[in-house]
Amino acid sequence: MKSLHRPDLWCWSEFNAERNLDFHSYFWQRPEGNVVIDPLPVSEHDDAHLTSLGGVAWILISNADHTRAASVMQARWGAKLAAPKGDAQLPDWQGLSVHSWMSADQLLPCGIRCLGLQGSKTPGELAFVLPPGDTLYCGDLVRGQHAGTLNLLPPARLVDPRLAAESVRKLANLLDISTVLVGDGWPVFTVGSQALRALADRLRID
Amino acid sequence: MKSLHRPDLWCWSEFNAERNLDFHSYFWQRPEGNVVIDPLPVSEHDDAHLTSLGGVAWILISNADHTRAASVMQARWGAKLAAPKGDAQLPDWQGLSVHSWMSADQLLPCGIRCLGLQGSKTPGELAFVLPPGDTLYCGDLVRGQHAGTLNLLPPARLVDPRLAAESVRKLANLLDISTVLVGDGWPVFTVGSQALRALADRLRID
Repeated sequence: MKSLHRPDLWCWSEFNAERNLDFHSYFWQRPEGNVVIDPLPVSEHDDAHLTSLGGVAWILISNADHTRAASVMQARWGAKLAAPKGDAQLPDWQGLSVHSWMSADQLLPCGIRCLGLQGSKTPGELAFVLPPGDTLYCGDLVRGQHAGTLNLLPPARLVDPRLAAESVRKLANLLDISTVLVGDGWPVFTVGSQALRALADRLRID
Repeated sequence: MKSLHRPDLWCWSEFNAERNLDFHSYFWQRPEGNVVIDPLPVSEHDDAHLTSLGGVAWILISNADHTRAASVMQARWGAKLAAPKGDAQLPDWQGLSVHSWMSADQLLPCGIRCLGLQGSKTPGELAFVLPPGDTLYCGDLVRGQHAGTLNLLPPARLVDPRLAAESVRKLANLLDISTVLVGDGWPVFTVGSQALRALADRLRID
């Protein structure tokens, strides 16, 4: 796995030829049990790396479209899985054991704060703010097709572009976000809040 | 290939398990003939993408240790190859047709300015400033092991750490570098000059 901006965070990636961008999954090492977010398949090398860092206690899924290789990871580690309550009615959880349904504005026991995103391709998508509050994860609605900036899912994939823009404005109001990790595309490091505000401004103009 | 911060720049990447980082190669589309820098092997998908963007006219190699898949790319496209003059005596150019030896401070016909780096693992390593001057490429001496910041090659691989630090200070004096593209690790977007200055300051303190 690749180092990120903090020594407790790592990621692994997979190039998606259809979209010409990388998909990413994230690993957060913590004494109380490690957390992975939206896990892609793991190579033998990264499995050994994960193991050396203490394995996986929890899997967080940001939206029903991002279950990815969660079932394999759950079988491998016996990890508990948390999923968005607003997506509970979708069929994507079959074959997974969901231990916890996460709601908008919920503070998880691990310290992650869940933020509800609306207008995206599923009704329950959540963004995650990692403690101490410097790092935001967006699985699907907000992405990094072009390095150094953020963009939305293509309009054709948005259920409600107006609500999506409102959700971005909410994210842009978060203070002190240095890093926006994304499920799809280039993450933004150092200038996270600035990139969120720029996206919110572009959506206002559009 | 993946979009970068400008519509004329793309990259493709390969995870390196030994170092737990991505290696990158870059593609610059230009009307007078496209340029690639330090090319890794190209997938079938990216070959089709390269073809759709007009193929490859020139291959630039930043140092003798980064010839990578240049011979395959040269055979595929009949591309001309430019290499650092200061590395000309090294054996790595066997099997390649070098059309041009690049020197420190040279302005190439394509508009790229070459900057000499000293103290690195080869004597002739060059960094490249792409026109109009917003984007710097560092192949080896400067890299991005930890996202959002830049670091040097490990000390054991530096021929002369003092000269290497001097070279970084020279890069840190470049104005208006928004992006530092790297051969190894995370590129830095938006805050390139700031990251270079931070690295130069750290080396001064160390």
